[in-house]
Amino acid sequence: MVTEHEAMGRAVALAARGLGTTSPNPVVGCLLLGPDGDVVGEGFHAYAGGPHAEIVALAQAGKRARGGTAVVTLEPCNHTGRTGPCAQALIAAGITRVVIAVDDPTPVAAGGAATLRGAGVEVVTGVRRAEAEAGNVAWLTAVRRGRPYVTWKYAATLDGRSAAADGTSMWITSEPARADVHRLRSTVDAILAGVGTVLADDPQLTVRDLRDGSLAIKQPLRVVVDSLGRTPQKARVRDAAAGTWIATAAAVGAGPDGRVDLSALLTALYARGVRAALLEGGPTLAGAFLAAGLVDRVVGYVAPKLLGDGRAALAGAGVTTIAEALDLDLTDLERIGPDLRLTAIVRPKPSDHPARHPYSE
Amino acid sequence: MVTEHEAMGRAVALAARGLGTTSPNPVVGCLLLGPDGDVVGEGFHAYAGGPHAEIVALAQAGKRARGGTAVVTLEPCNHTGRTGPCAQALIAAGITRVVIAVDDPTPVAAGGAATLRGAGVEVVTGVRRAEAEAGNVAWLTAVRRGRPYVTWKYAATLDGRSAAADGTSMWITSEPARADVHRLRSTVDAILAGVGTVLADDPQLTVRDLRDGSLAIKQPLRVVVDSLGRTPQKARVRDAAAGTWIATAAAVGAGPDGRVDLSALLTALYARGVRAALLEGGPTLAGAFLAAGLVDRVVGYVAPKLLGDGRAALAGAGVTTIAEALDLDLTDLERIGPDLRLTAIVRPKPSDHPARHPYSE
Ligand SMILES: NC(=O)c1ccc[n+]([C@@H]2O[C@H](COP(=O)([O-])OP(=O)(O)OC[C@H]3O[C@@H](n4cnc5c(N)ncnc54)[C@H](OP(=O)(O)O)[C@@H]3O)[C@@H](O)[C@H]2O)c1
Ligand SMILES: NC(=O)c1ccc[n+]([C@@H]2O[C@H](COP(=O)([O-])OP(=O)(O)OC[C@H]3O[C@@H](n4cnc5c(N)ncnc54)[C@H](OP(=O)(O)O)[C@@H]3O)[C@@H](O)[C@H]2O)c1
Repeated sequence: MVTEHEAMGRAVALAARGLGTTSPNPVVGCLLLGPDGDVVGEGFHAYAGGPHAEIVALAQAGKRARGGTAVVTLEPCNHTGRTGPCAQALIAAGITRVVIAVDDPTPVAAGGAATLRGAGVEVVTGVRRAEAEAGNVAWLTAVRRGRPYVTWKYAATLDGRSAAADGTSMWITSEPARADVHRLRSTVDAILAGVGTVLADDPQLTVRDLRDGSLAIKQPLRVVVDSLGRTPQKARVRDAAAGTWIATAAAVGAGPDGRVDLSALLTALYARGVRAALLEGGPTLAGAFLAAGLVDRVVGYVAPKLLGDGRAALAGAGVTTIAEALDLDLTDLERIGPDLRLTAIVRPKPSDHPARHPYSE
Repeated sequence: MVTEHEAMGRAVALAARGLGTTSPNPVVGCLLLGPDGDVVGEGFHAYAGGPHAEIVALAQAGKRARGGTAVVTLEPCNHTGRTGPCAQALIAAGITRVVIAVDDPTPVAAGGAATLRGAGVEVVTGVRRAEAEAGNVAWLTAVRRGRPYVTWKYAATLDGRSAAADGTSMWITSEPARADVHRLRSTVDAILAGVGTVLADDPQLTVRDLRDGSLAIKQPLRVVVDSLGRTPQKARVRDAAAGTWIATAAAVGAGPDGRVDLSALLTALYARGVRAALLEGGPTLAGAFLAAGLVDRVVGYVAPKLLGDGRAALAGAGVTTIAEALDLDLTDLERIGPDLRLTAIVRPKPSDHPARHPYSE
C-alpha cells in the first residue's frame, strides 16, 4: 500500500524512461492503485506510436483496476490518436479516482479531466506538479512555444577555451564526461551543429557506447546548419548510422545576413516532430542561437585545465557591454570523473517577446 | 571527557583562526587534557610575536595540566624564539603525553619531539595528519619550497570572460562572491597584481567590509608587479590603508624578457615573511606565473553569465597544444549567491624540478 504522493513520485521516475523516444509525444508515467491502495499496475509511454502509459498499466492490472485510482503524470488524453483516448479506457476499466500532476496544454489531447469528471470519476490535479513539469520540461516548453526546447552543450577548460592555440581539442574532457554527452544525446530528438564544426572535426553526431562504438537503437536526427550546403559528401554526419538533414538557407529560409534563419529552422524541426534539440556548437552557431534568444538550457562540461590561449567556447552572442550579459540560473552541478558538469537555465531577456502560447488562445 | 582524536579535530579548527596573521609562523592549535581526559586548556597561535598555542593553553590550564596530555597540530618548537621553546614549557608543566599531527619541517624549530621524549614524555605523531597538513598547506608548502604559497584568484563568466567587448567588467560576480574575495584576502600575507590591472582598474587591494567600506585591522602587503615603475603616484594601491611594494625589475631582478623575474620576486617576498600570497591578476601576469610553474592553487569565481566576446580571464600561459594544458584537480565547489566558486590545485608538471626541501637536507 502506497500513498498517492509516493505513487506520483514513482510515476514521474517511470515517465523519465521514455525521454528521447516519445517525441512528438510527452513522457508520461502511470501507476494504478487497487481499491485497497496496493499497486496493481504501472506503465510509461515508451515510444511514439506505442501504447500510452495508462494503457500499459491497465493491461497489467486487468480486473484489479476496478474501483481503483489512476496516478498519472499528465492529464489523460481525450482524443482518438493512434492508441485511443486514455480517458475512455480508464472509465471502461472502472477507475473511480484519477490523480494528475500536470494538465495537458495541447487542445487536441486536453479535456481528459472533463471527460472523466463527466463520467463520475473524481479527478485531482497538481500533485507533485513541479517535479512532473521538470520531467517534461522539454516537451511542455516546446508545445508552448511552437519550437523545440534547445540545450546548448559545450566543453571547455576552466578558462573557457575549447581548443588550444594550435587548434587541438581532443580531448579537453575526460572519457566519463564524453560518455555523459552520449547519454544527453540519447534524450533528444535532434542534434544540431554548424558547418564550421563539421568541416573542422568531421563528427559523426550519433549516440554510441564509447567502449565498443556500438550505436544506440534510437538515433536523433542529425542537423547541419549549413547556409550554402558546404557539408562534404564524405562527411561522417552523412553516413547511414542515423538520419541527417543538411539545413540550407534555400531549404529553411535566410536571415538578413543570408545565413540560415534559425527561428525558421526551429519551426521546421518542430513540424518534423522534434521537441528536444541538442545544439553542439561550435562557438559561432551557439553565439547566433544565444543572440536570437533561442537557447533554453546550457550544459557545460568543464575540465580542470588551463590553456591561456586558443578558441573560446562561445563567440559573438551579441553582447557588447557587461550590463547586457546573458543571465542564467545554475540549476545543477555534478562532478563527472575529474570534470565538472554545469547545468543552467537561460533567463528570458526583458526585451524578449512573451512566450507564444500557440494553443492557449 | 573527549578522545584524543576528537581533541585533535578541535585543535585543527582552532589553528585555522590564526590564518592570515601568523606568518612567517605556521598556524597551530592546542588542546590540553587533564589526567582524566577532560579539556583543561586550549589555545591557538594568533599572530607572529604572540604566544604559541601551547603557551596559551598551559596558561589557561594552570596546575590542572600536571599529568595530562597535550594535543597539538604541529610538533612543539624546540628553539628559544620570541616566546621560548614550547617543548620545555610542556615538560615544566608536568605534561606526560604529547599527541602531534604534523612534524615541524624547519630545522630551527624541529627537535621538539626528541626533547620531549628525552624528558620521559610519551610522544605520538600522525594523528589527523592529513587534516592538519591541509590547514597549514600554505605555510608547509612555503617552507618546503622557500617561496610563498601562491593562490591565483579570478572572476569570469561561464564562457571564461573577465570583461565584455567594451572592457566593462563591474560587476561580473555578485556581492556575496566579492565579499568572499575579501575573506580570502584576509587569509594571506600579500596580494599581488600586475601594473596592467592597476592602470586599468585602480584597485585598492585591501581587506574591507563591503557593506560599510571599513578596513580590517590586519592588511596584507600590496605588491604591484611593475617592471618599469609605471604605477601612478595617485594610484589607490599607494594609499595609507596598507603597506605597498612596487616591485620593479630594478629592485627584484629581470627575466630574459626584461620584466620582473617572478621567481626572484617570490624569493624576496619569502624573505619578507610572506608565506601565503594571493595573485589577483590580471590575465597577463597570471599567465606568466602559471607558465613559470609558480601557482599552487586556483580559486575561480564563476558567474552564470555568457558574454561571447571580451577579454579572457587568462592569457599566455605558455601552452600551445592540448597535450600541454595545465592540469588541475578540483578540490572544492561552492555556490556563493548566484555564483560558483571553484577551488583547484595545480598539478606539478612532469617537467618541473622536484620540490626543493631547503631545510631537509
Ligand atoms: N568545445 C566544444 O564544445 C565544441 C563543440 C563544437 C565545435 N567546437 C569547435 O568549434 C570549431 C568550429 O566552430 P565555428 O564557430 O567555426 O563553426 P560552427 O559554429 O560549427 O559553424 C558556424 C557556421 O555555421 C553556419 N551558419 C549557418 N547559419 C548560421 C547562422 N544563422 N548563424 C551563424 N552561423 C550559421 C555558418 O556557415 P555558413 O554561413 O557557410 O552556413 C557559420 O560559419 C571547431 O574547431 C570545433 O572543434 C567545439
Ligand atoms: N576578472 C578578474 O579576475 C581580473 C582580475 C584582475 C584584472 N582583470 C582585468 O585585467 C586587465 C588587465 O590585465 P593585463 O593583462 O593588461 O594586466 P596585468 O596582468 O595586471 O599586468 C600585466 C603587466 O604586468 C607587468 N609584468 C611585470 N613583470 C611581469 C612578468 N614577469 N610577466 C608578465 N607581466 C609582468 C607587465 O608590465 P610591465 O612590463 O610594464 O611591468 C605586464 O604588462 C584589466 O582590464 C582588469 O580589469 C581581471
